[in-house]
Amino acid sequence: MPDFNFTALKKLEIILDGEHQEFATDILDRAGVKGYTIITNVSGKGSHGFHEGHLMFNEDDVLIMIIAAVPEKLVNPILEGFEPFYNEHSGVVFISDIQVTRAIKFGG
Amino acid sequence: MPDFNFTALKKLEIILDGEHQEFATDILDRAGVKGYTIITNVSGKGSHGFHEGHLMFNEDDVLIMIIAAVPEKLVNPILEGFEPFYNEHSGVVFISDIQVTRAIKFGG
Amino acid sequence: MPDFNFTALKKLEIILDGEHQEFATDILDRAGVKGYTIITNVSGKGSHGFHEGHLMFNEDDVLIMIIAAVPEKLVNPILEGFEPFYNEHSGVVFISDIQVTRAIKFGG
Repeated sequence: MPDFNFTALKKLEIILDGEHQEFATDILDRAGVKGYTIITNVSGKGSHGFHEGHLMFNEDDVLIMIIAAVPEKLVNPILEGFEPFYNEHSGVVFISDIQVTRAIKFGG
Repeated sequence: MPDFNFTALKKLEIILDGEHQEFATDILDRAGVKGYTIITNVSGKGSHGFHEGHLMFNEDDVLIMIIAAVPEKLVNPILEGFEPFYNEHSGVVFISDIQVTRAIKFGG
Repeated sequence: MPDFNFTALKKLEIILDGEHQEFATDILDRAGVKGYTIITNVSGKGSHGFHEGHLMFNEDDVLIMIIAAVPEKLVNPILEGFEPFYNEHSGVVFISDIQVTRAIKFGG
């Protein structure tokens, strides 16, 4: 059995209105993220946004979830990039721990 | 750089037949969950359900994944709400650790 | 309140071109994985593949994400199964910790 070389990364799951996809991927590109995956056909409801009193989404918004695996040191710069956006728009970023094998090109 | 204020939450990924979406979101609403995200275009196969001998899904079922970020104290009440359902129907709930920033409205 | 019996498993999120779905699920089947969930309507961009210089996907590829919850001892055999594939094709496997309740049929 090969000896897999696991690398610990942070997974960002960025949920926002699909019309802002390019804005979001520009932030990732500028932060040095080398790739991401996008799930379409996402909907959302409720106020689990960043700010009190902010309704997150209407049920008929067309949302996307952008998934990126990044070195920990990129998390704060990326969140910083989204900060002004989430002061104006709804959405959320989930941050979690993942491992990948041979993550040569995950950026940073 | 802003000093992000991370909040640890539990991410629930609830996979079930799309016809039961309202049942599931009612459980979340009653538990005090303020929002959730739903991924459609999901399919499943196999028996990784809750009960031995239970086939999880047929390949042509139209499934959904409901994603909710909740305070840890809501996990058991929500699972309790799903308990009778999963005694009758197939599906699964994945529980994992996530962090969000400024999670003012995540309920609980 | 019922006393839930949580089982720690590894969640694999396998992203690859949808044309290789059967190849991937065959690997899972042979490893003893009892079930999985597939998200379609996934796209990707960039080079966060396994190998340096490998572009991961073109923007118009039709990708899928296969989600499987497996006992930790199955992770290496499954990755081993994907090893030759990812030497030839693009994609990524994310590995993370999850918990499920009463995971009787998760294989292994």
